[in-house]
Amino acid sequence: MYRELLEKLKAGEMRLHEIDGMLDTKDAVKLRRAAISELTGVEFKHIDQFSFDAEDITKRNIENMIGAIQVPLGVAGPLLINGEYASGRYYIPLATTEGALVASTHRGCSVITACGGANVRIFKDEMTRAPVFRANDVIGVKRLVEWVKENFQRLKEKAEETTRFGRLLAVDPFVAGRSVFLRFSYDTGDAMGMNMVTIATNAAVDLIIEENDVELVALSGNMCTDKKPAAINAIMGKGKTVSADVVLSREIVLGKLKTTPERMVEVNYRKNLVGSARAGSLGFNAHAANIAAAMFIACGQDAAHVVEASNAMTTIELKDEDLYCSVTLPSLAVGTVGGGTRIGAQQECLSMLGAAGAGDPPGVNSKKLAEIIAAAVLAGEISLIGALAARHLAKAHAALGR
Amino acid sequence: MYRELLEKLKAGEMRLHEIDGMLDTKDAVKLRRAAISELTGVEFKHIDQFSFDAEDITKRNIENMIGAIQVPLGVAGPLLINGEYASGRYYIPLATTEGALVASTHRGCSVITACGGANVRIFKDEMTRAPVFRANDVIGVKRLVEWVKENFQRLKEKAEETTRFGRLLAVDPFVAGRSVFLRFSYDTGDAMGMNMVTIATNAAVDLIIEENDVELVALSGNMCTDKKPAAINAIMGKGKTVSADVVLSREIVLGKLKTTPERMVEVNYRKNLVGSARAGSLGFNAHAANIAAAMFIACGQDAAHVVEASNAMTTIELKDEDLYCSVTLPSLAVGTVGGGTRIGAQQECLSMLGAAGAGDPPGVNSKKLAEIIAAAVLAGEISLIGALAARHLAKAHAALGR
Amino acid sequence: MYRELLEKLKAGEMRLHEIDGMLDTKDAVKLRRAAISELTGVEFKHIDQFSFDAEDITKRNIENMIGAIQVPLGVAGPLLINGEYASGRYYIPLATTEGALVASTHRGCSVITACGGANVRIFKDEMTRAPVFRANDVIGVKRLVEWVKENFQRLKEKAEETTRFGRLLAVDPFVAGRSVFLRFSYDTGDAMGMNMVTIATNAAVDLIIEENDVELVALSGNMCTDKKPAAINAIMGKGKTVSADVVLSREIVLGKLKTTPERMVEVNYRKNLVGSARAGSLGFNAHAANIAAAMFIACGQDAAHVVEASNAMTTIELKDEDLYCSVTLPSLAVGTVGGGTRIGAQQECLSMLGAAGAGDPPGVNSKKLAEIIAAAVLAGEISLIGALAARHLAKAHAALGR
Amino acid sequence: MYRELLEKLKAGEMRLHEIDGMLDTKDAVKLRRAAISELTGVEFKHIDQFSFDAEDITKRNIENMIGAIQVPLGVAGPLLINGEYASGRYYIPLATTEGALVASTHRGCSVITACGGANVRIFKDEMTRAPVFRANDVIGVKRLVEWVKENFQRLKEKAEETTRFGRLLAVDPFVAGRSVFLRFSYDTGDAMGMNMVTIATNAAVDLIIEENDVELVALSGNMCTDKKPAAINAIMGKGKTVSADVVLSREIVLGKLKTTPERMVEVNYRKNLVGSARAGSLGFNAHAANIAAAMFIACGQDAAHVVEASNAMTTIELKDEDLYCSVTLPSLAVGTVGGGTRIGAQQECLSMLGAAGAGDPPGVNSKKLAEIIAAAVLAGEISLIGALAARHLAKAHAALGR
Repeated sequence: MYRELLEKLKAGEMRLHEIDGMLDTKDAVKLRRAAISELTGVEFKHIDQFSFDAEDITKRNIENMIGAIQVPLGVAGPLLINGEYASGRYYIPLATTEGALVASTHRGCSVITACGGANVRIFKDEMTRAPVFRANDVIGVKRLVEWVKENFQRLKEKAEETTRFGRLLAVDPFVAGRSVFLRFSYDTGDAMGMNMVTIATNAAVDLIIEENDVELVALSGNMCTDKKPAAINAIMGKGKTVSADVVLSREIVLGKLKTTPERMVEVNYRKNLVGSARAGSLGFNAHAANIAAAMFIACGQDAAHVVEASNAMTTIELKDEDLYCSVTLPSLAVGTVGGGTRIGAQQECLSMLGAAGAGDPPGVNSKKLAEIIAAAVLAGEISLIGALAARHLAKAHAALGR
Repeated sequence: MYRELLEKLKAGEMRLHEIDGMLDTKDAVKLRRAAISELTGVEFKHIDQFSFDAEDITKRNIENMIGAIQVPLGVAGPLLINGEYASGRYYIPLATTEGALVASTHRGCSVITACGGANVRIFKDEMTRAPVFRANDVIGVKRLVEWVKENFQRLKEKAEETTRFGRLLAVDPFVAGRSVFLRFSYDTGDAMGMNMVTIATNAAVDLIIEENDVELVALSGNMCTDKKPAAINAIMGKGKTVSADVVLSREIVLGKLKTTPERMVEVNYRKNLVGSARAGSLGFNAHAANIAAAMFIACGQDAAHVVEASNAMTTIELKDEDLYCSVTLPSLAVGTVGGGTRIGAQQECLSMLGAAGAGDPPGVNSKKLAEIIAAAVLAGEISLIGALAARHLAKAHAALGR
Repeated sequence: MYRELLEKLKAGEMRLHEIDGMLDTKDAVKLRRAAISELTGVEFKHIDQFSFDAEDITKRNIENMIGAIQVPLGVAGPLLINGEYASGRYYIPLATTEGALVASTHRGCSVITACGGANVRIFKDEMTRAPVFRANDVIGVKRLVEWVKENFQRLKEKAEETTRFGRLLAVDPFVAGRSVFLRFSYDTGDAMGMNMVTIATNAAVDLIIEENDVELVALSGNMCTDKKPAAINAIMGKGKTVSADVVLSREIVLGKLKTTPERMVEVNYRKNLVGSARAGSLGFNAHAANIAAAMFIACGQDAAHVVEASNAMTTIELKDEDLYCSVTLPSLAVGTVGGGTRIGAQQECLSMLGAAGAGDPPGVNSKKLAEIIAAAVLAGEISLIGALAARHLAKAHAALGR
Repeated sequence: MYRELLEKLKAGEMRLHEIDGMLDTKDAVKLRRAAISELTGVEFKHIDQFSFDAEDITKRNIENMIGAIQVPLGVAGPLLINGEYASGRYYIPLATTEGALVASTHRGCSVITACGGANVRIFKDEMTRAPVFRANDVIGVKRLVEWVKENFQRLKEKAEETTRFGRLLAVDPFVAGRSVFLRFSYDTGDAMGMNMVTIATNAAVDLIIEENDVELVALSGNMCTDKKPAAINAIMGKGKTVSADVVLSREIVLGKLKTTPERMVEVNYRKNLVGSARAGSLGFNAHAANIAAAMFIACGQDAAHVVEASNAMTTIELKDEDLYCSVTLPSLAVGTVGGGTRIGAQQECLSMLGAAGAGDPPGVNSKKLAEIIAAAVLAGEISLIGALAARHLAKAHAALGR
């Protein structure tokens, strides 16, 4: 049968996902891989190497599975953190293919740790979903906006019926002609929560359209905003809003970063503030996305949320003779349950951080993860700004032979 | 010695990277992993599983390596593409942990292919690096700007001395008081090129500071803009500017997407245009970042460049009785040489697309990859907008048990 | 003495404002004008023509006065409005030097009125001021944020002690490293209110710095945001958030605008949505600023607030066979008391609208003015989009001989 | 007849503009005013006061004229300027109703002049118009883009046939699916030029649609971008891109601004850079729009262009012991011919600046005006930042009794 199915797949008489019901998972994966191999002429020697449980994974994380990608994993640290959830020394797992990234972050961890560690605080923790409705006219729009205000409690009940952990915190209306966007904000515990809030909002939407003369246009109206660069996230937050800072002593800057506090202030000012401003940017940082991407892949986070993580601002300022450095990430979407967090290697990375699975009380693990990421981003910023100040960047790239 | 080094690592008497000179690569990786295991109390059963050549990888792609992350890999397609570089049926490799993503993209591929395939065109292909200088005053700034204009040819020669493939195309000046940002744009062949342009620009910078009374503040002044959301990339482009489109027949929309062309137009209009506009977004799409992230991880691209990929615009319009759908990605940064492209599984994915390694002439492979990604993003957009129009989104999530 | 002072002014021995204490207002104005005349060689025949009371004006509206500028005033309308504050037919005063603007707005009023008038609703009415503080570190920042939450009532009392009409509605904190921005939002009755909220916030700031270990850096920290284009205003609002809409019958579009509903939908879609999106704009309209500027000058508003008024979105959509048109202005800053509202001609224009001075209850007049402006902007949008759809724009300009 | 027409106007049997053909201008203005007076119950004692020639004005600047608004005019200065077009001491005309604005700008002029004057340089001078076209698909889009590149010379000839002074400099294409925006950039001599470039582009468009299989959707596609806040203008410029700077001595800052250089650096940093960044702003300044608005009204500029003027960036930096201050306005749209520049009082203000009418060679007058405005904006910024640093802002407002 295997050969027969293979031929059908190759001939296009059967579609790639149709074999899932006919074979057990392992065989389906193998057969699909074989079909792709024959169709594309590529002999696979690597993507078939994986140690996670395919059966489990194909239920939750992937469809049409043919194997796995291996992303090299390095570690930076220890990084000393003084957060409300993360406290102590952490080893930062970074999955990346970009040479110099781990080394650079490592250097940043080293100077932060030498200077007493990074303070971290979370200011907001709300996951959002914003359906869009169409009313008849602006009069109908206003009626809906008022109805929502008066019926918040009922919306909350409806939404929370669908979830054990999610708590509806607010519904903010935004208007554009006869379009109304209702931005639902939730506490989602240890889950990153996009799926949770989608399902909960879907339930609330039923109540809205039942009792109001409006039409639901789409369950997501892009004012959420999910996985797109958007000022609304940079300003109002989405996921965790978190800041990390440290004061680097002048000696450490001179000795380890081989530059001066004044040079670093100047680089950060003209690059991360003036330059980003002039570019019409929502990201006033050097490379927050690099650290976020590498930690997201390592820790089973949704890699597309790197977009929101890149809405970060870095400040570097003189403080007497020393150097005050901070990062603020207004929209860091992370979780420690759901998504890719249970997959073998990913869960091991979360465990390295003491942040795997559900926390007690719910939410402490995802907050811990957020604090660690913020501190690691700070390390990355300090290291790169230091390198630019010392004019090491091109040399670092050149040394890696690229 | 192993035990001794391990104890030193654990005690912090030796740093994680210091063992690299003392042991061969395999042992260093193993020792570091053991140290992290003991320090964090995590027993690693997955991150030590990898099939790529650690020695090669640690030279170019990672430092402080302790293993690898396995990201599940699925495949969508076939996707019929009518590009200038990609032409024919492609199977799209997607490495993700987000359930429903492959299935959704697969559905999009199916309707595109059924309707004759996606047209794709590349409009611009320039990788950028923008150092920032400080002049004495605006008079000095103007002198520099004029000098650059007059000496473009010399800058080009200097820059191109450092690279076999890179070609300097333009240097655009931007001013902010006494800060000057010179945005260098290059053709980088099949390389994504950030490192190439950094090194080349570094050489050109030497000439600038030699002959002008200005100081280099930083080799990257954030008007590049690399890995941050920025209007300059969304407007002027960075990497490839590429558009894909297709006309879906009404029958296909009704039959396969279970909704109507009119509903899809309405959803795209209120969500991707009105909603994104109201959110102050640079991304007028539904989830381009999802497809970009999954393909980037699969194909050894720099995952942090998902940020620029998310600057995409989706349009869905009636065309007589049928449905015109397009995506435009102004700043898609991809390559088929360098970075993670040579790693085992990643290279296999590029090979699946017939886009591994250097093309002949240089550039055709990276352009082919860009065209395929754009077409896949189109598939993702069509599928998600279709699902929202049919109000399937929450159901899809719910069905996956999340 | 006159001649002597004149010579001193000309010689720079006395400064332009120093004569104010020495002469009565009329003479000071005259003398200053004479000095400028001699210094610049311009014989003034127009700027000395004005009918307002110079003494009153120099106390509140201008310093170093030398005369007045005359801005031509035209009128558009009647414009039928169905608002909550404005109801009935209004004649729109427009002070402008740009030919075709009044005629174009007039045409828009005509079609709106013919179709039953514009619906208008106000969704938010809050004037903002956001001082910026510097804390010691993110730990201190979090303490401040929490203190503000706990002490809102006390802040409210302090702020409201300074004003008869202002009511503090909320204080929203935004963080960037050790910088904290507290965005104070007020109901300011019939006043536009920037000055009122500045003074009130100044009082609240005293309480904050007394009880917290933070420094005030600036009473305005630009997250207000006043007179700069800013997503925070476009999204969260500043001043009045107001929407106006109308359904134009197909006959009217064909007969009066000489184009089709379909053409207007297409123009608005590709220009105001796709085009603005592609330009990285916060203004998704055709020329809201034109109408706002002309009404602001006519009605004694602060002309620099045209910046916030330009954050407008226009939507034009088919509704069965007819044409749904709307504008939404998220940040319209207007008032009917204070500023230039009491000056002769300006007050006459406000009176034309039945919106001069303080309303009863306070706020109804400024809301009425906001509703009328929104409806007039809608008229302007309809007319220009109609002209573009009929390809009349260049002809209109050409006909005016420019 | 007068009474009869009046009754018809009041009864709505005749429309406000219809009397223009029946009466001479003066009588038409009077009659219209009388009608509005009776319709609204307002007795006009001020708007009927004006000294310009109504006949001339109604041909070019206004329709449905009923009179004029008088805007109080003050003067700041002298302001010493070291520009390429403006050189020497200037008295800055400011028409405003906002108390404290002239005084504040005056103070800024005083410190700049005391420190040797403001350097000013213009970096770009291009007025833009961007029509939007619809092609059949992305293949057609690419064909058009290539056609435009190959036919630039022909487009230039067509466009320039319509104008004596306008010169087409470039046509930049931007793509969004099947929409193509062609951004035409012109040198427009001493005219602000929006009308000139509209007419010229209209001519070029004829050639485009004649020879390409595309449809013109709208002559302005909002990528121009005219009178809306837009990153494209802030980044690429529109009108004049101009920078002004000055080094203030420490003594002057201490003695005249009653604060320290360090305080002003801190205020500018946290307010104009960090605060604006956090607000998602395109304006990194304190109140450039205030000075621009007041000078625009005084000098007969289009007041709606204050929107583009507000895209300004202010930098304040220590320079040894002194204080470097700059402003950069990327998109300052001004002219000295056309628009309101010929009206009595407005022309007098331009004459005060030695910038009335056409320059020789063409363009020098509008550039001179741009340089003066930039220097005046610098004065305004210095004064307000100084006041905030000394915490004088609220006091200034309070002193003015508001």
